[in-house]
Amino acid sequence: MRDLSRDHRWLSLNTATVRKQGSLIDIVEACARHGIRAIDPWRDQVAAVGLDRAVRAVRDAGLELSGYCRGGMFTADAAHRQEARDDNRRAVDEAKALGASCLVLVVGGLPQYSRPGSAPSKNLALAHDQVADGIAELLDYARATGMPLAIEPLHPMFAADRACVNTMRQALDLCDRIDPQRQGGLGVALDVYHVWWDFELFAQIERCGLERMLAFHVCDWMVPTTDMLNDRGMMGDGVIDIPRVRAAVEALGYDGYVEVELFSNRWWDRPIDEVLSTCVARLKTAV
Amino acid sequence: MRDLSRDHRWLSLNTATVRKQGSLIDIVEACARHGIRAIDPWRDQVAAVGLDRAVRAVRDAGLELSGYCRGGMFTADAAHRQEARDDNRRAVDEAKALGASCLVLVVGGLPQYSRPGSAPSKNLALAHDQVADGIAELLDYARATGMPLAIEPLHPMFAADRACVNTMRQALDLCDRIDPQRQGGLGVALDVYHVWWDFELFAQIERCGLERMLAFHVCDWMVPTTDMLNDRGMMGDGVIDIPRVRAAVEALGYDGYVEVELFSNRWWDRPIDEVLSTCVARLKTAV
Repeated sequence: MRDLSRDHRWLSLNTATVRKQGSLIDIVEACARHGIRAIDPWRDQVAAVGLDRAVRAVRDAGLELSGYCRGGMFTADAAHRQEARDDNRRAVDEAKALGASCLVLVVGGLPQYSRPGSAPSKNLALAHDQVADGIAELLDYARATGMPLAIEPLHPMFAADRACVNTMRQALDLCDRIDPQRQGGLGVALDVYHVWWDFELFAQIERCGLERMLAFHVCDWMVPTTDMLNDRGMMGDGVIDIPRVRAAVEALGYDGYVEVELFSNRWWDRPIDEVLSTCVARLKTAV
Repeated sequence: MRDLSRDHRWLSLNTATVRKQGSLIDIVEACARHGIRAIDPWRDQVAAVGLDRAVRAVRDAGLELSGYCRGGMFTADAAHRQEARDDNRRAVDEAKALGASCLVLVVGGLPQYSRPGSAPSKNLALAHDQVADGIAELLDYARATGMPLAIEPLHPMFAADRACVNTMRQALDLCDRIDPQRQGGLGVALDVYHVWWDFELFAQIERCGLERMLAFHVCDWMVPTTDMLNDRGMMGDGVIDIPRVRAAVEALGYDGYVEVELFSNRWWDRPIDEVLSTCVARLKTAV
């Protein structure tokens, strides 16, 4: 397990963490001030400044991208399937233009939430099949582009509206189903927030192996959690034994970025420099 | 699968559903008005009127008990373990006195939340072991008393503070670990609210089998869910395909009560008769 207490060279900032404090350009500049070497930007933040400008800003700052957020939302009724397909191919192209190491996939829940306007459904099994089909189809395109796809299992409390893939076991079963020969270009993004509760977590990390461990995200689980979406905690403020999870991930040979991704009304209210310096400090003591 | 559309003979009311509207005695009287034949009362509601009076009220009304809520909270530091042990034995005794079909177990999360005053811990693996040990020990007592224990897997969003058993697979693994010879007296309480999201749900219901399916609870998952604890939906108002889950449970041979358990600020604000008549109506159309 790497010693992260001395410097923060392996810190990556998911830009949603400070999305309320400024534009992607502001965030890139703030990362430079704090010696942060990598980011994982969101599509809407890139779109707000324009892809070309985002590409230049990232390149000029010498930033790496530990991922690009996000593709997915594969669940849709027939009328919205082409939209989902086109949208995901654009996400792959943007990720490639930005030089991301992978495209993070939030796979979608029930179609009426994932692709608004889709006919309402309670059929979760159908959603699972649509996700498998959607990833399989996108994978051909992504492989041709050279962009790995990282399935992110989301906490089960998001099963209806965001992602019906909710455990590492399920994500890895999907990988096996879509890529049985392990040709590659497909794996998972493990965010401790979503999977820390799972009694099978450590067994499934071992099963995952290095080649499918494409991203590692951290934040913390607060008790009580007052908002399902936007009350994630800063590392060390909650109950997740983050070092134990990191140890298991790094035991696979993982030596990539540790990405901080926090959706938090509390942290969005604070100055960007305070948030980043806290991320740096906590990476050294609580991750 | 039973036809529930004609009458509500298989409806049981978990008394937490109307806990704000009156005492256990009030609830028992309301059940009589609505032709509800069974309840699942909570310990604090029984304690508030006194065990003897509760026993008489239930007996005089001719009510059956589809369960008793609840035992558990096995996770504790050493200083609080005896308290947990004694408390759970009393729960078994009360369940027996009331004639419950099982004692529902909410197993506990991290000790500082399950048994307040316990030393803070982030060690979920230790919590899992404490749960297994606690159930195994209680099972001896419960078998001698003739009271089946029903492990209720709780939604993963409650893993820290309420229950670190969060899936049917995990609950059944626990049953196998504690009762490998299947001597009985140990099983699960399946609440659709907690497990509906699980891609393995139907495989694990099949694995469970009739002898370990001790209780079946229903309500619905709302999108959005505005309060993690107290925003459960009335059956039909949310996204859970309840009939599909019931069909799988009844395919095992299950022919017991369908228990309505709703924690909802919205429904607690309504008159008890409106809530009960809605439960009856929805049982016929949405379950």
